[in-house]
Amino acid sequence: MSLPVKIAIAGAEGRMGKAVALALEGRADAAVVARFDRPGAEGGYLVSRDQALEIAEAVIDFTLPEASVQLAEAAARRGGPALVIGSTGFSDEQLVRLEEASKTIAIVRSGNYSLGVNMLMGLVRQAAAALPAEDWDIEVFEAHHKRKIDAPSGTALMLGEAAAEGRGVDLAKVADRGRDGVTGPRVEGAIGFSVVRGGGIIGEHSVIFAGESETLTLAHSAIDRGLFARGAIAAAVWVKAKPPGLYDMQDVLGFSRSDVS
Amino acid sequence: MSLPVKIAIAGAEGRMGKAVALALEGRADAAVVARFDRPGAEGGYLVSRDQALEIAEAVIDFTLPEASVQLAEAAARRGGPALVIGSTGFSDEQLVRLEEASKTIAIVRSGNYSLGVNMLMGLVRQAAAALPAEDWDIEVFEAHHKRKIDAPSGTALMLGEAAAEGRGVDLAKVADRGRDGVTGPRVEGAIGFSVVRGGGIIGEHSVIFAGESETLTLAHSAIDRGLFARGAIAAAVWVKAKPPGLYDMQDVLGFSRSDVS
Amino acid sequence: MSLPVKIAIAGAEGRMGKAVALALEGRADAAVVARFDRPGAEGGYLVSRDQALEIAEAVIDFTLPEASVQLAEAAARRGGPALVIGSTGFSDEQLVRLEEASKTIAIVRSGNYSLGVNMLMGLVRQAAAALPAEDWDIEVFEAHHKRKIDAPSGTALMLGEAAAEGRGVDLAKVADRGRDGVTGPRVEGAIGFSVVRGGGIIGEHSVIFAGESETLTLAHSAIDRGLFARGAIAAAVWVKAKPPGLYDMQDVLGFSRSDVS
Amino acid sequence: MSLPVKIAIAGAEGRMGKAVALALEGRADAAVVARFDRPGAEGGYLVSRDQALEIAEAVIDFTLPEASVQLAEAAARRGGPALVIGSTGFSDEQLVRLEEASKTIAIVRSGNYSLGVNMLMGLVRQAAAALPAEDWDIEVFEAHHKRKIDAPSGTALMLGEAAAEGRGVDLAKVADRGRDGVTGPRVEGAIGFSVVRGGGIIGEHSVIFAGESETLTLAHSAIDRGLFARGAIAAAVWVKAKPPGLYDMQDVLGFSRSDVS
Repeated sequence: MSLPVKIAIAGAEGRMGKAVALALEGRADAAVVARFDRPGAEGGYLVSRDQALEIAEAVIDFTLPEASVQLAEAAARRGGPALVIGSTGFSDEQLVRLEEASKTIAIVRSGNYSLGVNMLMGLVRQAAAALPAEDWDIEVFEAHHKRKIDAPSGTALMLGEAAAEGRGVDLAKVADRGRDGVTGPRVEGAIGFSVVRGGGIIGEHSVIFAGESETLTLAHSAIDRGLFARGAIAAAVWVKAKPPGLYDMQDVLGFSRSDVS
Repeated sequence: MSLPVKIAIAGAEGRMGKAVALALEGRADAAVVARFDRPGAEGGYLVSRDQALEIAEAVIDFTLPEASVQLAEAAARRGGPALVIGSTGFSDEQLVRLEEASKTIAIVRSGNYSLGVNMLMGLVRQAAAALPAEDWDIEVFEAHHKRKIDAPSGTALMLGEAAAEGRGVDLAKVADRGRDGVTGPRVEGAIGFSVVRGGGIIGEHSVIFAGESETLTLAHSAIDRGLFARGAIAAAVWVKAKPPGLYDMQDVLGFSRSDVS
Repeated sequence: MSLPVKIAIAGAEGRMGKAVALALEGRADAAVVARFDRPGAEGGYLVSRDQALEIAEAVIDFTLPEASVQLAEAAARRGGPALVIGSTGFSDEQLVRLEEASKTIAIVRSGNYSLGVNMLMGLVRQAAAALPAEDWDIEVFEAHHKRKIDAPSGTALMLGEAAAEGRGVDLAKVADRGRDGVTGPRVEGAIGFSVVRGGGIIGEHSVIFAGESETLTLAHSAIDRGLFARGAIAAAVWVKAKPPGLYDMQDVLGFSRSDVS
Repeated sequence: MSLPVKIAIAGAEGRMGKAVALALEGRADAAVVARFDRPGAEGGYLVSRDQALEIAEAVIDFTLPEASVQLAEAAARRGGPALVIGSTGFSDEQLVRLEEASKTIAIVRSGNYSLGVNMLMGLVRQAAAALPAEDWDIEVFEAHHKRKIDAPSGTALMLGEAAAEGRGVDLAKVADRGRDGVTGPRVEGAIGFSVVRGGGIIGEHSVIFAGESETLTLAHSAIDRGLFARGAIAAAVWVKAKPPGLYDMQDVLGFSRSDVS
């Protein structure tokens, strides 16, 4: 067995930083070697960003867009280490800077690090490519806790995008949301969405391929909120030895998009 | 074992009449003794309505409102047999005439003879009465084939009514349908509906009670379209020995409404 | 709104004692007024058992059988408060002593305080009583994490007992466990069990009533391990005003066994 | 749109032959041009085998092994048409003869023509290859009607094989069947099976990948028994233009095994 990958945690004081540290405990394939947070926070177990970059083989970063971009630029100047970025809400300009940094270092960026959800996206894309729209209707179902304020969930929409990509259509044109009342028969090629909200449900997603005589259902269920941390760690172990480039969780899981194009 | 209940089938040439005949084949507790259809159709295996009333212990009738009411009145004049009525769309005036007939004969009337759906309604009413709205969110989910033109299904709305009745609230005031976009957090006491449409799905219904730490789900799945015929036969076996009165499938299943009021 | 019920927590230093304290935070209907643990542990926020009995309206106790019995006897001598006992593994002699104490004070005792599981048991008993064995096959399915060492789960067996009780049969005689190989057709009246083990699944239970044309499924899913604490608190709120007697969660939920006997 | 593929139905008088004819009604991409059955059955709408081979572009054959092999040999002598074979129970000698015929004509052979089940097998193989055994436990669940006499179903075992193939292990060595009693913790790398039997359930299969924080479930549900006929027709449309060779439904659906090896 190879040595554990040396991980630094950015935003170590944040909710996700702590979750990543917790999820790393007891793992054989990866270990924390440094934690850091915003400039000036050094002390206790916190080091500076540059010290962290010095000793880590991969940095896991769930912070804010500008901090992530500056981290990427600093790592690129040094020629490493690799990054796993889970921050969300990047501007186009920030995305360009990330892309620039990825010419020198390997970066994984994703809006959802759940291994299962990303696996699901890849499988949905393939099934949607293989099962023709005239025979198979696609429906995306999701359920979340009562505090969630939007519907469908971002992940449900990503799954809808994966299905639309598999079929070579534009989700915006085929999405059928908020079905209610006299709807008429289902339109061929539509991708439907349905939503349950209640109690403390952490997150359920299903993509249903419904044929005349059978249904195929690809589903994901979150057991606890540690799943994003675990996925980011898997990405860090994967990215350590990769050449420079901008990757996402579909790459980490070994799905190549060209398979279905 | 007692003798099989003698069944006459009204509307014997119709889709449901045939389904009832098929479902009666090989049963030990009930047997067809007569089939009839509209006046003038006698001949072959069809007898007249009055001949059927003469020899049957219970009539199963999936026809049209006026035919059903006239059947009830004819049976009432004779003092029997008992009736199981599955026709839908009665006017108020017709319902009054049925009620009048039920002073002399036993009549079961229901819009859905599925045993499972009716069992589900009774269980939902009880669970909704027992699980307080501040801790448990109620959601009704249903899935049907792509040809269905309305949403939610009539049965989903009946399940919502059962939940509302259990809670002592008015479904119209608490129903949350067609959830989509920025919805804000779930409103306490709401009864949500979600809808899947696709392929040949015969009919799935779930009522979800979602608490902070657990969910309770009561679900029904149709395997084939014979389930309504089977339920009507069960009602006929049940009603044969009952005193005059107007019953529904909740009575057949032994749920008394007063349990939860 | 009435005043919050005054709760004392026995075994306050234990895993369940802490979970109960956590689940009480922010509730309007119940509040912690005292915590205690084994004799000699007083100090800090811990009081003595007798001080706790003095000020509480209900004690929640997840400890060990002998400690629970002595607590009951102490409360009975004082004429209160009411108890909610979640300890397991009582000897027959200890159960007799609990019963004796329950002549003076109100005691709820249950092996599973999940509201949803107990609701499910009551619904299963009723459905099993209403749906005849010749037409409906009962199957109990459960899924748990990979560390669980026995199968089926204790709760699955309780659900099987509830189904058997509803049907008036002995579970030991009809249970069909570990189905594998050439089994022959299903035996009428059997209650089947099936078991999934994997990952971190907290706990899923389903009871399936399968007819020829439809299935009815009553299911419970645990979201987090706080559900037992929440159920015990609900029992404490309920039991506070009850006359002396020995109750269980079926009573708390308002199911009367005689309904189905 | 291209012309409909000209289909001949072998065993046209058999249950599956009739189901294929029914499923072809109203399709735009394929049409019946000939039906035949055993020698001597010609007459009415039945032609001889050789007449059928003359005019068809593909033959769908659910008969018996020897009849299928002779059909393949007759087609090979003529240089066509292509065959879709659903007969089961071939001897090794018969399989060699089929393989020989497939050097001249294109033949699809499968034990299960459900498109959904075959899609599921391909997805399961991939997911099993991508999700490491130390983090993900695989469980195969199936439910069938009460008349089924063996467990797990052949399809469940095929799904288990697909998972084992994805992981590069031997199913016989890792299968965990009939779990019951004191089992100890789950063994890493095991592939578990669980079985429900009841009522008229047509066929449900799920493959569960259970991680510590999430589960991924890939499931198939049969709505009616026409699904095998539909899959065979899809295979016939696909195979018409293929070069000689022996194919299966994984090929029809575009899964290449080498992707995961």
